[in-house]
Amino acid sequence: MQVMPVRPGFPDSEDCSIARTMAVVGRPWTILVLRDLFNGVRRFDDLATHLGVARNVLTRRLGELVEHGLVERVEYREPGRRARHEYRLTTEGRDLRPVLLALMAYGDRHLAGPDGPPLRLRHRDCGGAVGVRVECAHGHELDSRARIEPA
Amino acid sequence: MQVMPVRPGFPDSEDCSIARTMAVVGRPWTILVLRDLFNGVRRFDDLATHLGVARNVLTRRLGELVEHGLVERVEYREPGRRARHEYRLTTEGRDLRPVLLALMAYGDRHLAGPDGPPLRLRHRDCGGAVGVRVECAHGHELDSRARIEPA
Repeated sequence: MQVMPVRPGFPDSEDCSIARTMAVVGRPWTILVLRDLFNGVRRFDDLATHLGVARNVLTRRLGELVEHGLVERVEYREPGRRARHEYRLTTEGRDLRPVLLALMAYGDRHLAGPDGPPLRLRHRDCGGAVGVRVECAHGHELDSRARIEPA
Repeated sequence: MQVMPVRPGFPDSEDCSIARTMAVVGRPWTILVLRDLFNGVRRFDDLATHLGVARNVLTRRLGELVEHGLVERVEYREPGRRARHEYRLTTEGRDLRPVLLALMAYGDRHLAGPDGPPLRLRHRDCGGAVGVRVECAHGHELDSRARIEPA
């Protein structure tokens, strides 16, 4: 693989936090599995049904998420039935929420149908609409035209 | 495909801005191609070399990005050479920056080596460190434990 620095000040293609994160969450379905876990869908059958994904693929994706420490597998037992497992985000997994919210914000803005965004989120404590904001340490909000450079 | 609502208040699996955005940027290499375009790598040969990706795959990914309006193909000509093309993010493409910054923030936090994050970014106008922040309309910063629900 390639190690050419892209431009002065930028790291190599793989020595990069975006590349490393994508190595963990970049497989097909992974982001949607995480989305469903964030939304409280925790059981294998429910995930398979809601996502419409092949069960062997879902097994692999959940296994990878467990292996990377983003998800934990927890046993539960309903009365009179055998033990089963559900999947819960770990603290580390929950740290991916800004990624999902940023993906959602893009889709809301550019890919929504005539009815507008399919889902709006609010902060439970105060009811305020939830958003993602890029800003600098001095509090400037950085829109897509703001100039960002290596420090 | 599946259209079961996941839970009351949440949309179907595909009627979802995260799913729609992933349909555009979720193919292998797409996010890293966007990263390099953000970082000023614009020429096909430079992208291929820096990414270490097969040229036919890069051609497909760039074609998809052009087709979805995130990237435009612009002709350039060096003195005495034939015309070639470079690829530039459109305004719509630049709106993906929060996604890339959120992926980077996660990698910086959880996947960095002993030397820490490989790249730090600053706001060119003021030098302030750049970050991504999830917040509500009332200005509360929402960390991974904050409770977010459908509005």
